[in-house]
Amino acid sequence: MSIEPLSGAAAAQMLRAMREKRPLVHCLTNEVVQEITANVLLAAGASPAMVVAEEEAAYFAAAADALLVNVGTPYPARLRAMHASAESAAANARPWVLDPVAAGGIPWRDGEIRKLLAKRPTVVRGNASEILALAGAGAGGKGVDSTDASSAAIVPAQHLAKASGAIVCVTGETDFITDGERTLSVSGGHVMTTLVVGTGCSLSALVAAFCAASNDRLEATAAACALAKRASERAYAVAPAPGSFHAAYLDALYLIEPESFLE
Amino acid sequence: MSIEPLSGAAAAQMLRAMREKRPLVHCLTNEVVQEITANVLLAAGASPAMVVAEEEAAYFAAAADALLVNVGTPYPARLRAMHASAESAAANARPWVLDPVAAGGIPWRDGEIRKLLAKRPTVVRGNASEILALAGAGAGGKGVDSTDASSAAIVPAQHLAKASGAIVCVTGETDFITDGERTLSVSGGHVMTTLVVGTGCSLSALVAAFCAASNDRLEATAAACALAKRASERAYAVAPAPGSFHAAYLDALYLIEPESFLE
Amino acid sequence: MSIEPLSGAAAAQMLRAMREKRPLVHCLTNEVVQEITANVLLAAGASPAMVVAEEEAAYFAAAADALLVNVGTPYPARLRAMHASAESAAANARPWVLDPVAAGGIPWRDGEIRKLLAKRPTVVRGNASEILALAGAGAGGKGVDSTDASSAAIVPAQHLAKASGAIVCVTGETDFITDGERTLSVSGGHVMTTLVVGTGCSLSALVAAFCAASNDRLEATAAACALAKRASERAYAVAPAPGSFHAAYLDALYLIEPESFLE
Repeated sequence: MSIEPLSGAAAAQMLRAMREKRPLVHCLTNEVVQEITANVLLAAGASPAMVVAEEEAAYFAAAADALLVNVGTPYPARLRAMHASAESAAANARPWVLDPVAAGGIPWRDGEIRKLLAKRPTVVRGNASEILALAGAGAGGKGVDSTDASSAAIVPAQHLAKASGAIVCVTGETDFITDGERTLSVSGGHVMTTLVVGTGCSLSALVAAFCAASNDRLEATAAACALAKRASERAYAVAPAPGSFHAAYLDALYLIEPESFLE
Repeated sequence: MSIEPLSGAAAAQMLRAMREKRPLVHCLTNEVVQEITANVLLAAGASPAMVVAEEEAAYFAAAADALLVNVGTPYPARLRAMHASAESAAANARPWVLDPVAAGGIPWRDGEIRKLLAKRPTVVRGNASEILALAGAGAGGKGVDSTDASSAAIVPAQHLAKASGAIVCVTGETDFITDGERTLSVSGGHVMTTLVVGTGCSLSALVAAFCAASNDRLEATAAACALAKRASERAYAVAPAPGSFHAAYLDALYLIEPESFLE
Repeated sequence: MSIEPLSGAAAAQMLRAMREKRPLVHCLTNEVVQEITANVLLAAGASPAMVVAEEEAAYFAAAADALLVNVGTPYPARLRAMHASAESAAANARPWVLDPVAAGGIPWRDGEIRKLLAKRPTVVRGNASEILALAGAGAGGKGVDSTDASSAAIVPAQHLAKASGAIVCVTGETDFITDGERTLSVSGGHVMTTLVVGTGCSLSALVAAFCAASNDRLEATAAACALAKRASERAYAVAPAPGSFHAAYLDALYLIEPESFLE
């Protein structure tokens, strides 16, 4: 299958649609990145809500526009809230995104990730190692080196998309987004993003926001990736060290206009 | 009842008193904003402590100078620590502040907030929608739109203050602070604060710090609001995008001198 | 016993070794500082991983290069993960660092800290008050004022090191690092670090990273302190207020080269 770069026109349209809707994104994410995840959504033009207790998460998932489930720091009570919220989102036709942090690294976690994958997320967003692990590729499906290039995961991602029914988004030096039939790519970005915790996790939240604003979820997911890559480039241009880059990345998410993707 | 702007002299005096005392503020707040809450307290001149376990929170509440209870991400164990700490603070004559995040939005949470409100907080600090919900105003006391203007909540806030015995602080474009008899207002600030998660939650922590340093808790609460609004203005003047605004807001909280309120 | 300043050559060598290894540091730390801890490790050249559930923490501790245990916000489930991870790290010959936050302040917490200390950490890193409390010094081993100067804890730290078998690192205006026989000092730094939450907690994570890259753990611990102090100085030189200082501190951790310690 050929790979098609996301067009600037599609990126612009999807960003415009997201900002017009200002989607409320329900985030069940890991302990480390909750603040940056909220700030990334706010800067980009969406609205975050972390409603995490089993007692209320599923109720809230029905009211929000999209759901993020990130298993960076899973434990039983939080996992129960994740399952209930994913079911609630699906029952109410809300898109939900699964971020399978560290898939392939720890047997207990892998079991939990597979149970969530069986709940049919709209999108799975991970790095190459995580997607290879979920696809059963890599060294016998076992711990996969996180240094895998994203291109190594294209074919496994396509298989995973067909098997799971989810759009699969592999991020790395180039991002690849596939539904198993059509595959988009997004290039650019800057490696400095890997020195700020939560840039990947919060991209998954952006994917949820973009998917809330368009029925073309393949292009919506790719447009979220394009916004993150463009923001990284702009941030690095003014702030080439990680502390100031973090602030500049949020600034760029706020300042980038849809029209800039048409240039 | 007439509304009286907080005087610059009162704001200056309260800030000076808070910095002289350097109060230790015990924070039981939500998962998303713990870091910014601690940093806001430190920058402004107070001292934060997040002691959260049921096993030790009530013990610590008796030693700290003030307590913050913020229900942004409540769950049963944390709620038990909140109740025990609120009782301990009250028994030891420490002021405590309740931040009823998202009141009016989720039935289970509303029940928990009402139980905390019954423990007689010194101050309740929320946005207009939250205060309207607690006051039983809005559309039959049900989910209230978070876009309510703060002025729409003045009369309900005055009723809530009388009914609960708490000072009620409604923040928004203008902040209103009332004990049911006297109502103060604080204007200024900048809407960019709404694009940085935790600026509202951490204001509630500042209110606790200011209340620890003065027996005039109406003016103390308003002075905390005045510091936050002044800091927002200064931050926006140098950093008109959310990432750099966040850093500039903390800088401003540290740099603003009491005398600046006399100008 | 005489006190010996850490040599620039040793600091340079240890930083070079840490960056070459890029150690994976397993962090079980408090709720408030997880993001800054991860960002400090990334900026300095290490790799963070917060794997916190009882179900997987001990498994992961065997795979990581070092472990941090910080008891800032302990509760029973997290403490069980800490104990299991400490045992796993020790069984797999991985260094682990105990950060006894607020030791001496709350009886329940003190009991938990003593149980962790009995698991024989490689390094204990705390402020003077915490180390005095652990050493049974101060006012009868009871709550010690956090304003104790680090020099007041030198002799107690030496006793604690001998009694516990751990390297003891007391940080403050000057840092002292001792194994009970040899004692190193690191001077410099800037007091602005005390206005940014997590600078101390994340230093403990850096200590773990440096200890993963050298068998001379006394010098490795001191070198981590030297990097933090140097980064504070550089940050304050460009950003003398806490919000911008935070970003500049991370920038400096990234930009400081080993050779700069030879000047």
